[in-house]
This record gives sequence, structure tokens and C-alpha cells, in this order.
Amino acid sequence: MDQITLSHGSGGEETNKLIEELFYKYFNNDILLQKNDSSIIDKINGKIAVTTDSFVINPIFFKGGDIGKLSVCGTINDLAVSGATPLYITVAFIIEEGFLLSDLEKIVKSIGNTAKYAKVKIVAGDTKVVDRGKCDKIYINTTGIGVIKDNDYEPKVIDIKQGDKIIVSGSIGDHGTSIMTQREFFEVDSEIKSDCACLNYLIIDMINASKNIKIMRDPTRGGLANTLKEIVISTNKSMILNEEDIPIKDDVKNFCEMLGLDPLYVANEGKLVCIVSQEESDKVLEAMRKNKLGKDASIIGEVINDINANLYIKTTLGATKILQMAHGELLPRIC
Amino acid sequence: MDQITLSHGSGGEETNKLIEELFYKYFNNDILLQKNDSSIIDKINGKIAVTTDSFVINPIFFKGGDIGKLSVCGTINDLAVSGATPLYITVAFIIEEGFLLSDLEKIVKSIGNTAKYAKVKIVAGDTKVVDRGKCDKIYINTTGIGVIKDNDYEPKVIDIKQGDKIIVSGSIGDHGTSIMTQREFFEVDSEIKSDCACLNYLIIDMINASKNIKIMRDPTRGGLANTLKEIVISTNKSMILNEEDIPIKDDVKNFCEMLGLDPLYVANEGKLVCIVSQEESDKVLEAMRKNKLGKDASIIGEVINDINANLYIKTTLGATKILQMAHGELLPRIC
Repeated sequence: MDQITLSHGSGGEETNKLIEELFYKYFNNDILLQKNDSSIIDKINGKIAVTTDSFVINPIFFKGGDIGKLSVCGTINDLAVSGATPLYITVAFIIEEGFLLSDLEKIVKSIGNTAKYAKVKIVAGDTKVVDRGKCDKIYINTTGIGVIKDNDYEPKVIDIKQGDKIIVSGSIGDHGTSIMTQREFFEVDSEIKSDCACLNYLIIDMINASKNIKIMRDPTRGGLANTLKEIVISTNKSMILNEEDIPIKDDVKNFCEMLGLDPLYVANEGKLVCIVSQEESDKVLEAMRKNKLGKDASIIGEVINDINANLYIKTTLGATKILQMAHGELLPRIC
Repeated sequence: MDQITLSHGSGGEETNKLIEELFYKYFNNDILLQKNDSSIIDKINGKIAVTTDSFVINPIFFKGGDIGKLSVCGTINDLAVSGATPLYITVAFIIEEGFLLSDLEKIVKSIGNTAKYAKVKIVAGDTKVVDRGKCDKIYINTTGIGVIKDNDYEPKVIDIKQGDKIIVSGSIGDHGTSIMTQREFFEVDSEIKSDCACLNYLIIDMINASKNIKIMRDPTRGGLANTLKEIVISTNKSMILNEEDIPIKDDVKNFCEMLGLDPLYVANEGKLVCIVSQEESDKVLEAMRKNKLGKDASIIGEVINDINANLYIKTTLGATKILQMAHGELLPRIC
């Protein structure tokens, strides 16, 4: 038996076998091994952060990662940018009948390794199998629980003011572009790798450097432009970006140009953008650059005095454009 | 625009519109409206229970419920049978391109109403859209967070001993049978309704009646037999059921007979089975029967002295059979 069958999702003997022989092998921890309808975890001493995300990426294995690694990093990052220490995640699979057990094992192993790296425990899980053609190989939902302790840093979005600096942790557009080059119908021979990574340790370094980080976000779907535009809308403050300061790899730039895409709107899975007071921006930048995941961090713009609540970009040619919220969808299932 | 398009899952303008106009309309609460990558909830004063479940049921609307109601009840029940008070849930959608927005609204409304009834807040969400043919209409993941306070009841599985009574809260097999009769290829004209319901208030009544409930479980996939067999395996205690005491509706019995199915293995979504000390079993039974969801509760068997760790059933004909863990799968996507 080298494929997933419907009986693996029936809740019977085969489901139990899958849980015991595969999931417990890579997700082993005291909480999961309670084997109850709910897992009981200890008191959490602080405010609790919660986030959920489903991953439907295609292809499921890609340069720089796989759907398993992505599903852990994505949720860890949503917790960490909110100032929370990630503690626990749940993992729920929807698997297509006929999926290779060897591929499932690769993914489960990848989830286990990434969770271990990020120091989160997988505390609950679920497996559903759907008939052939009712899903595309495998979809994964992860829900994350983190803690914000009493004296922990918490973002202070309301403090955002003119002169605050916008910092991005590295080159943008890598993830989305990488995934696109690996879609069957593109057949592009490219070395662009997804930036898929857990940002929690980078964020610890940043918070240790300054308590004046006013907001952090991970620019996934919709890319850097959408993420900043959302901040502009919610804070009612205008911002301006300097195009020449935004790190974009040549490969990414070229591929996007070829397709008429703007890398500012392309998904990232291992980058963050933050807004920091002018005075402490160099300190934060320095801390970021010392971490491998922030070595290409750059100040890319600032909050300006403008009543229109717009996101502007000063292009390399010297013109100033307004960036809007993305609409439409070039390519689905990028994450 | 009356259908879901890929752009609804892009993270851009259309996603935001869906969130603002549909999700916030029915899921409105202070925590969700933080609109952050993670939602920050207050300290939880007690141990925390966590569970996750994906729902891939077909059909998505059925007699007695829909995928929305089911996805809330299922997770609420997993928390409640563990002795936890359900507090928060997350809701993540995977939607097929072309899905009717009116159907989505029905489901979202149903989720909102069920959550309100069960007094849980929807604290985080996610929406992914996959291309046509890459999912079957809609799949939903819910993850639940509950609390077990210091003086709350907690199941004491290790105390299970000979003479303890097995109580089921009502007729079994309703959900699975109902779903089967509503599958296109059966074309059976039946009035069997799913028992889909949130059991948290029934469980409060039970716990108030007795602190000697040793385990509670909701017999979903795999049905009553599988759930009890799992308890037999994990406790190493044998049990015997009396077939004539197990409440099964005539319609359910007839339909199952026609298909050669055993209702003991058919899924329930609004029933629980518990093991209670002999002395307090009548008290618990009485409390259950006073609640609408437990009005047909019955003592169906007991824990016996037998070293083989088997689940037995005494049939109406007087014979004693061993019930095994289910294997294989008659019909997928029953929940």
C-alpha cells in the first residue's frame, strides 16, 4: 500500500495506523500523545495570539521549500509579526485519494522539522481524504497559538507618525516568482528560490534592539504593496517608497518584466516589513542585517505628511506614482 | 458578481470586500475586528483545550444542517467532551472558483448563528480560492480553543472499572445515514435527518449532575463501535453492549439493513457516549433526559471483568459477538 486510500480518512483502523506510524513519528510530543478529542495544554501566562491559514499551493514541492514547511512558516510568521512568541500549532490535512504515501511522509517530515526549528509543538491534527479529483494532491490548514507576556513588546500602530521609516527585511517577490517559474505551463528554467522561512528569531533580534517598532507585517498574498496599502488605510497615514531602495533580485525583476508583473505585488513567505521611529531605524536595521534572514534589509521609504492616505512610490526615473490595492488575480494558489 | 472568483482569494481588493461585507456581517466581534495577522485575545485563566477539524462533507446542505453548522458543532463537541468550555474558534475556507456567493452567505450565516448559540467567538479566519475542479464546492477547517478552569470537571479515564455504565445520549447513526440518503446516486426519498448539534449545554447539565463521569466522547467518523473500541484499547478494559438497549431509529435501521451497513459504525454529529460509575449512572441519565439533546439517552452496556480488552455486544438473539475496529470506507466525506 503506497498510496492514500479513502479508508485512511475513515476514522477506523487505517486512520489510526497513519496517525501512529507516520504522524507520531515526526510530530512526537507529550501533548499530542494524549490522543484525545481535544489536547489539553498548560495555562498560558499572558495574552494569547491566534491565527489560521490554509495552504493550497501548487506545486507542493518547490525550490526553497514545500507545502509542509510553508504551512508552518506562514502561521509562525503571522504570530511573530504580532509580537507573539509562537507556542503551539494544529495541522489538518485534506488529501486526495491516490496521493503517494512517500510524498506525504516528506511533507510530514518537513512540518516536523520546521516546527522543531521554530520551537512550536504540534498539539492537534486531523486527516480527511477526498475522492480523486476533489482536491489537488494535498491541502493543509495550520492554526497557531502564541503568547504575549505582560512585559513583551506589542506593536503600537497608533503611534505611527511622519518621518517613521519603512524597513523591509530583504529582497521581495522571490516566493511568488519562484512558484510561477515552476508551474508546468511556464516551463521556465530558473534558479529563483522561494524565500519560505520562519521569521520568529529575526523578530526577537529586532525587538531586542528597539521597543520602537510600531508595526510588523509579513507581505504574503498581495505582496509588499498590498501590505503597506492596508497599513495606510488602517492608520490613515500616507507613505512614500523609494523604488531604487527596494531590494529585488535581478532574476525576479527579469521574470516579472517578461510577464508584465510588478514584483511589489508578488507574494513573499520569508520577509517582513516594519515601521520604526526615525531615531531607532538604524539600530533596527543593524540588528536585522546581523541575522541571516535580514542580511539584505533596507530602509525603503517613510511616513509622510499628506492628508490623502496614499501609498506613493518615487520611481527610479524620478516620477511619483500612487500604488493602489491589488485587484484581480494573476495566478491562484501561490500559498 | 454572484460567484466566487479566483480574485476573492488573492489577498487584494476583492478578498477585503468579501471579508468586510460578508464575514464581518455574520462573525462580528471585537477580537476579529482587530484585523491583524493574528488576533490577540485576553488571558485564559485555566488549562487550555485545543482541537482542529476539517469538514469536506458532501452534500454541503443536508436535512438537519449544513457544512457551516457542522463545522462549528464538530469542533465545539470535541472541546466539550474533553471537559472544556468552548471559547474561541477559527474558521478557514477553501472555496472552488464558481461557487455561488449566495450559498457562501448561507454557510457563513449558519456558522455565525451556531457560534452565537454555543457562545464562542470566531477570532480568526482565512479564505483560499482554488481553480474549478480542484475542490468540491467548499471545505472548511475550524480550530477550537476552550478552557478548563482549576475546579472544573476533568475526565478521569484511569478510574474506569468493572460495573461502570455506558450511556449514549440518543439514537445513533442518524447523521451518516441521512447524508447517504441525500447523495445523488442513492436517490432515496427519506426523512432521516442529521443529528448535527452542539452538545456543550447538555454536557454542562451532565457535569452538574455528577463528578463521576469518567470519559465522554462524540462518536463521529467510525460511529459508536469505533469510539468505544478506542476506549477499550486505550484503557485495556473490556465492555459489553446490549443491542436491544441501543436506540436506533427504524428508518435508520431499515436503510442500513438495505445497504448491509451496521449502524454501530455510522457517524453521529450530535451524540455523545460516556462512561459513568454504576452509583451515579441513573443521576446522569436523568439529567441527560431532561435536556432536549439527551431525551432518548439510554444505558447501553457496562465495563466488565475480562482480560481480553474486547468490545462485546449481546445481540437481540442472545448471542455475544466481538466488535472490531472498523476498516475500509463505505462512503467518504460524511463529515
